[in-house]
Amino acid sequence: MKILFQMENAAAVAVDGQPGENLLELARRANVPMDAPCSGNGSCGKCRVKLLSGELEALPSRHITEEEFNLGWRLSCCCRVVGDCTVLVPDTASAYRSRIKTAGSTEAEELSVFPGFLSGIGLAPDHPFLAPVVTMDPPSAADTAPDSERLERAVKQATGAETVRIPYPVMKKLAAVLRQNGFRVCVKGMLESGCFVCMDITHPGDTALAAAAVDIGTTTVSAAVCDLATGAVTAKGSAGNGQIRFGADVINRIIEAGKPGGRERLQSAIVEETLNPLLGALCKEAGIGENSLLRLAVGANTTMNHLLLGVDAQSIRMEPYIPGFFAWDGLTAGDIGLTANPLAPVVLAPNIGSYVGGDITAGILAARLWDSEELCLFIDLGTNGEIVFGNRDFLMGCACSAGPAFEGGDLSCGMRATDGAIEAVTIDAAMEPKLTVVGKPGQRPAGICGSGIIDAIAQLFRHGIINQRGQFVKEGSRIRRDRYGMGRYVLCEAADSATGREISINEVDMDNFIRAKGAIFSAIDVLLQSVGMTAQCIHRIYVAGGIGSGINMENAVAIGMLPDVQREKFRYIGNACLTGAYAMAVCDPAAALCRRVAANMTYLELSTHPGYMDAFVAACFLPHTNRALFPNQASPV
Amino acid sequence: MKILFQMENAAAVAVDGQPGENLLELARRANVPMDAPCSGNGSCGKCRVKLLSGELEALPSRHITEEEFNLGWRLSCCCRVVGDCTVLVPDTASAYRSRIKTAGSTEAEELSVFPGFLSGIGLAPDHPFLAPVVTMDPPSAADTAPDSERLERAVKQATGAETVRIPYPVMKKLAAVLRQNGFRVCVKGMLESGCFVCMDITHPGDTALAAAAVDIGTTTVSAAVCDLATGAVTAKGSAGNGQIRFGADVINRIIEAGKPGGRERLQSAIVEETLNPLLGALCKEAGIGENSLLRLAVGANTTMNHLLLGVDAQSIRMEPYIPGFFAWDGLTAGDIGLTANPLAPVVLAPNIGSYVGGDITAGILAARLWDSEELCLFIDLGTNGEIVFGNRDFLMGCACSAGPAFEGGDLSCGMRATDGAIEAVTIDAAMEPKLTVVGKPGQRPAGICGSGIIDAIAQLFRHGIINQRGQFVKEGSRIRRDRYGMGRYVLCEAADSATGREISINEVDMDNFIRAKGAIFSAIDVLLQSVGMTAQCIHRIYVAGGIGSGINMENAVAIGMLPDVQREKFRYIGNACLTGAYAMAVCDPAAALCRRVAANMTYLELSTHPGYMDAFVAACFLPHTNRALFPNQASPV
Repeated sequence: MKILFQMENAAAVAVDGQPGENLLELARRANVPMDAPCSGNGSCGKCRVKLLSGELEALPSRHITEEEFNLGWRLSCCCRVVGDCTVLVPDTASAYRSRIKTAGSTEAEELSVFPGFLSGIGLAPDHPFLAPVVTMDPPSAADTAPDSERLERAVKQATGAETVRIPYPVMKKLAAVLRQNGFRVCVKGMLESGCFVCMDITHPGDTALAAAAVDIGTTTVSAAVCDLATGAVTAKGSAGNGQIRFGADVINRIIEAGKPGGRERLQSAIVEETLNPLLGALCKEAGIGENSLLRLAVGANTTMNHLLLGVDAQSIRMEPYIPGFFAWDGLTAGDIGLTANPLAPVVLAPNIGSYVGGDITAGILAARLWDSEELCLFIDLGTNGEIVFGNRDFLMGCACSAGPAFEGGDLSCGMRATDGAIEAVTIDAAMEPKLTVVGKPGQRPAGICGSGIIDAIAQLFRHGIINQRGQFVKEGSRIRRDRYGMGRYVLCEAADSATGREISINEVDMDNFIRAKGAIFSAIDVLLQSVGMTAQCIHRIYVAGGIGSGINMENAVAIGMLPDVQREKFRYIGNACLTGAYAMAVCDPAAALCRRVAANMTYLELSTHPGYMDAFVAACFLPHTNRALFPNQASPV
Repeated sequence: MKILFQMENAAAVAVDGQPGENLLELARRANVPMDAPCSGNGSCGKCRVKLLSGELEALPSRHITEEEFNLGWRLSCCCRVVGDCTVLVPDTASAYRSRIKTAGSTEAEELSVFPGFLSGIGLAPDHPFLAPVVTMDPPSAADTAPDSERLERAVKQATGAETVRIPYPVMKKLAAVLRQNGFRVCVKGMLESGCFVCMDITHPGDTALAAAAVDIGTTTVSAAVCDLATGAVTAKGSAGNGQIRFGADVINRIIEAGKPGGRERLQSAIVEETLNPLLGALCKEAGIGENSLLRLAVGANTTMNHLLLGVDAQSIRMEPYIPGFFAWDGLTAGDIGLTANPLAPVVLAPNIGSYVGGDITAGILAARLWDSEELCLFIDLGTNGEIVFGNRDFLMGCACSAGPAFEGGDLSCGMRATDGAIEAVTIDAAMEPKLTVVGKPGQRPAGICGSGIIDAIAQLFRHGIINQRGQFVKEGSRIRRDRYGMGRYVLCEAADSATGREISINEVDMDNFIRAKGAIFSAIDVLLQSVGMTAQCIHRIYVAGGIGSGINMENAVAIGMLPDVQREKFRYIGNACLTGAYAMAVCDPAAALCRRVAANMTYLELSTHPGYMDAFVAACFLPHTNRALFPNQASPV
């Protein structure tokens, strides 16, 4: 039977199905970009489609009202095909994944952190890349040297190189570029140990030397393009990780990658669907050609690193939980078809274990724990939560699976912290909310991101609207219940939202979020215990992650996500991984430093750690079953 | 309108045509493998097709008899399309191009020349390739090193390498191969300057280390696969160069490459259509996997080198005739998609000028002119004829365009020296021929190759059957004339041939061949004059090229192709280029020697040389207008 997916903003996709096949599985097989952070268990409600013709066998879902059902709305994960049919895939089902947000260098606020960072640790752009403009005599009967020798001579003279290597892509275009430019050209390349490797040959007016820093999160991918000469960030942006349709967390992705053709599908989802459009958009924003990107530095968790390379990741999820590689040099952009100069080295921030990867070693580089005399705690809030504790003398790291809730996944109205996201919430005594929305003034809300959720839950809890388990215990005009009796708090009425659908937090969202925050808190708890310390030993807590433009630490402590220490010890440092990757991209000593830091870090495997499960269960309350851990928190009103 | 090419032994190809378009041009555009060594000027008669339905506007051709015309036979270069039509492309129209001939190591005679050559110059296999079998402990909680580090440790221990590099293709398969083989594997790679580069990781039973030598001629491609451990040749073979449909000589190929998409088409014709099937067949014959081919050495003329790389070749045919490169290191098989290990270095024998290329420098390496005290002349008989004169003190080279006649092209019944080729001819006083045919006993003749043509013309001339210009001046039962009055000598009647068509030499064939031999002789003449010498100064004449299993030097002198010196000075050395490429593939010092020889060779550009054209015109007679140059030749009977 023929199943046709009509995309709201893209070409339709047809696929052959067998009777009884799951519609979401079919969509995945056909590479239809359908968001399914819950991996198709019916809990997230993101995979909504509208039946246009034909029939589907559908299970009832709390995410679809009766009115919506009558209009044809279905959750694709809850549908089985019974015959030919056509469904509409609305942009909301795929937007989470595909929307790219970029900012040019004029939007200073977005970009300010990077250049200051390098000088802050006593470094400056320092790399082997050069772009000399050279002039040659054209061939003549008197000088019969061929193009390649002519170029070699000129480059040796301009750079002092002893040898010149012309790789194939440059050799291939050499004759044409020399003649188009009257034998006056810019030669971009790298000079190392006396050998100049030509990476591109261009018009003499194009001397751009650029690098890219990339943070590959399980849910969100961020990147920045920087000028190698000045170290300035010239464009920055983010996009959803296209692998999301293969599962929200790393375990589901690894399982998916283990199926026939799975590695290729997951590699294509991150490279071709996610990174290449993002890097292409950033190059455009920065006003450079893609071929001018001469190095990429990548901070990614261990699984994302493996899936990026298409390397078998099965050993990550199986005892003894040892990945294929920690550090690995030798990748080029051309190896995996990245949008960049094909000869550009791809530098991977090293992994230190199966669940503490390059995103954390890059983040630690940026957070400067390696440079601190005092004891610090580093928390990266992502789909995986990673925690590092220590100082210049020792560093210890562990990871927990928080799920995508901090990035807006697995929540009925969740979204990333891009335009339209509710990023802060206060609720007054009359139970009415006040919202802060990402975007230009007048931007209507479209959903809620991680920082907004923390605020909302903390406020609902403080006002006694929900209990310790996140269940509604008060009634009011903002509190509604569906036909199954499940309560929700309405942040924004359908009429006022950007999507025309109500934005609310329901009890399932609350439950998902409480488990996420419980995972983080218990990981911190166990890590500190393992070195015989308590929260009171911590001098500074760095919170990193793309959770929003900021995070209300007071509220994060109030819900029991972070330890109850003095508020001035907290620092929200945003995307520390991207800052670390930036440093590695433009500065060789910074990259070497990151490798040294990683080599000295100890990895604690929580999944086999006795006591972690108990600590997790105890933390799945607001703020915690053990109130003594939160001495400064008042009881709810 | 729709033109359908029905292939005799392959899938049909359809193409859209415009009224008035040339059928051969359409076939080329559709990548239909149609042989056209004369580049479509109607002279070679190779592009025969049979009209099955529809209509074609056809010019009359002397290659199509009236009877054949009535059966539907046409020359595609002489046809214009006027509406939908379907034509049959017989295997004979494409066989010249595509037939691969291989021989395994058991057929000793075919392969004997190579291994003896290296030891003859005091060398032996000498290269950086290794294939240690290593055993590792599997990962455990006690040893948490990831796969990559485990491999590095094992390789360092086995090879003494200080560093180990794992390129992407090996990294990608590492986890699977380690686990499939219980962490006992063979690691193939190269050890240079203390760094081991892993090129493949295999089952411990597969320790094959192989290299390939390749001779890319304008008309014919030959290759050999050798065992790097012993230097033994394990398979050898040849195929027609698939670029033949874009023109018979290098100038037509360069022009074709200059058209939009032309470089890609010509590169694909040599790589995908010619080399890859040939290398694949040779690997099979040698019993090795393609990934075990760890190095390729290529001897090719300057144009073939450029087209192989897809590098712009236009400067070769335009003053001052200076190519894009002479020597160039840095190509890998993966760069151009060659059937071999993608990391395998491709070593190009260096060019020394636009028309003396790597085929000649490799050939000179094999002919040992660099090692000779006496003056030697080296003649490579190919589509281009190249001549080198000198000894250990100096070497001077030049080239002339002989056309494909020596390889059977541009002749009505010509073919390469493979099964069915008439390779030797004697004609008795009664004008009856006696033929020697390549192949097993009883092989019927299918055509005639270069050595056979030399014999036939020499014999016809000696018996006074043709005059100095190759025109028939006697009549007889073997001599026939077509309706235009053009004479031909029938070597084999239709009933006795392998193809069911008569095999003969006609006056146009004769004219083409006399021009080819005239080009060779005049080039020798001018080269000797340029250093103030005569034929009498030559101590030894080496004749190389795939002209047949041998060449009758007496006959070659009789027709005025080679200088009239004592017969014992001649040595036919077969495919010297392939022998030189073999040496470069298995022995680094031989490759270095080839580079030194090339660097010391002087190039004489004949096309701008005063006097060459006069010498050429004078040489276009049997044996020459100046009989004094052939003192030992009797006048014809």
